[in-house]
Amino acid sequence: MTARGIVIAIGEWNAHEWADAVHAADPSRRLWLWPDVGDAADIGYALVWRPPAGVFARLRNLRAVFSLGAGVDHLVFRDDLPDVPIVRVVDADLTQRMVEWVVLQVLMHHRRQRTYDAQQRARQWHELEQPAAREVRVGIMGMGVLGRAAAAVLVGLGFDVAGWSRRPSTAPGVRDFHGAAELGAFLARTDILVSLLPLTRETRGILNMGLLRQLARDGKLGGPVLINAGRGGLQVEADIVAALHAGVLAGASLDVFETEPLPAESPLWGREDVVITPHCAAASTAVALVPGMMRQIATFEAGGALANVVDRGAGY
Amino acid sequence: MTARGIVIAIGEWNAHEWADAVHAADPSRRLWLWPDVGDAADIGYALVWRPPAGVFARLRNLRAVFSLGAGVDHLVFRDDLPDVPIVRVVDADLTQRMVEWVVLQVLMHHRRQRTYDAQQRARQWHELEQPAAREVRVGIMGMGVLGRAAAAVLVGLGFDVAGWSRRPSTAPGVRDFHGAAELGAFLARTDILVSLLPLTRETRGILNMGLLRQLARDGKLGGPVLINAGRGGLQVEADIVAALHAGVLAGASLDVFETEPLPAESPLWGREDVVITPHCAAASTAVALVPGMMRQIATFEAGGALANVVDRGAGY
Repeated sequence: MTARGIVIAIGEWNAHEWADAVHAADPSRRLWLWPDVGDAADIGYALVWRPPAGVFARLRNLRAVFSLGAGVDHLVFRDDLPDVPIVRVVDADLTQRMVEWVVLQVLMHHRRQRTYDAQQRARQWHELEQPAAREVRVGIMGMGVLGRAAAAVLVGLGFDVAGWSRRPSTAPGVRDFHGAAELGAFLARTDILVSLLPLTRETRGILNMGLLRQLARDGKLGGPVLINAGRGGLQVEADIVAALHAGVLAGASLDVFETEPLPAESPLWGREDVVITPHCAAASTAVALVPGMMRQIATFEAGGALANVVDRGAGY
Repeated sequence: MTARGIVIAIGEWNAHEWADAVHAADPSRRLWLWPDVGDAADIGYALVWRPPAGVFARLRNLRAVFSLGAGVDHLVFRDDLPDVPIVRVVDADLTQRMVEWVVLQVLMHHRRQRTYDAQQRARQWHELEQPAAREVRVGIMGMGVLGRAAAAVLVGLGFDVAGWSRRPSTAPGVRDFHGAAELGAFLARTDILVSLLPLTRETRGILNMGLLRQLARDGKLGGPVLINAGRGGLQVEADIVAALHAGVLAGASLDVFETEPLPAESPLWGREDVVITPHCAAASTAVALVPGMMRQIATFEAGGALANVVDRGAGY
């Protein structure tokens, strides 16, 4: 008999919220909360976020692992992964929330909202120079589901949008750059850099001074802007601070950090040219995500394929 | 012989910038800057913004008047208008700038940016409750070119969008309300009210306490939000301040004011729940707008119809 049960193994979140959502979606399925797994023989699926050590060794009949967040860097760097499919969450709700955050941050820099905020506090009525969207070049690093969805809205707003990914991508109205060979050309035409990259061995620390110095110097915004909604491990915060100080960057919006919560002593907090949000760009909620996962499991058990399976070689 | 010349009559802007753009678009056309109009016999077209008194009485061969801004309230309330078509500017550049501003302000309130700004200043890492866009009802008052363009992007972001206008309108994915009879139902389902109305006898002061009290009380944003990018004369600022104070409104974004520049003593400046910008949402630039006007004149002279002619009865 095939294992149909589910275990939820979460390092830091409230597991009961996820358990309630699983039970609501399929009350017939046996459900365990790690570390209460009995002899684990009936557990076929693990829903995990930063799963504690020892989880996978106990689950000898496991058939698939579902990551409860879009990033899978909390999984693929481990050396105890079982030989079953690892599934990334791709969800319309998560995607829309990420697109909202990216579009909001692009517009805040494009429309100089932080400068207008300062003028408001000073009760100062002063109109600033404003380029048209078509004069501003947005570059999206990471043209997966999230990158392509953000690009679609930014193209609709009239921005001059390009995308860069490891492999070629196509998106309507978006110029494609790909591979290491085209990264320089992509950066050289980018005024607002949006990072939606996965965290892998290749991308760790990629948002460093060497990369930031390659961004466009001839743009209409008074200098390039960095927006990172991917993973904190992509960025070198000391370099971002130095780049802002040196005028290599004119501004930034960061939702993710090398250490989260961002330590109170970080100089990023105090900068008006940096927008800081607490890793809230696209928060997973159990109610939004679990029904899709349960449908995936049902399809898989009926002989269908799992979607969004992680490529372990690529790391995402 | 038909008058082909052009006069530029501007109350408060730099007329030379507009003259340069007209000359660049059609160097063959005679061009005057008010009050230097000679005997005015050759002047067929007036490009105007808050034109000084006496302009129209001198221009006996006038064939059409072009407003250099999207609003025509600076013209239609006058009693010296000649009996020729009054043309509103409708321009893709102006439309895109307005859409940017509206989308930015909707997202700032939806994503609670001003609260995150305050948390950043306090070096506080705290994630706030965040409804999905589909749970937030945006209502656009004024479904002309600007309203429909803003609605398209907001629908693309997943918001639940309705429009209200004097007459029925259709826009993909947008629920139509129209006429005085449906205003109450429209307001009762609106969490974020976006005003893009023209200023007319009917709309002056429409954004008052009586209207604000009709907005939805059961929304997911902690109270309704007012966004006005139309005209300052639409709003009663004392009522907006009172509504914010009483919790009738949870926030506002205002680009236009009863008196501009907004006086330094206005209590609106000091409120964190109000975003103030200095009538910069969609600034006209001569370089962007004049070529379209000159094409309209050429089409008109070749026997074609003028587009975007003001309905004097309606006042816009």
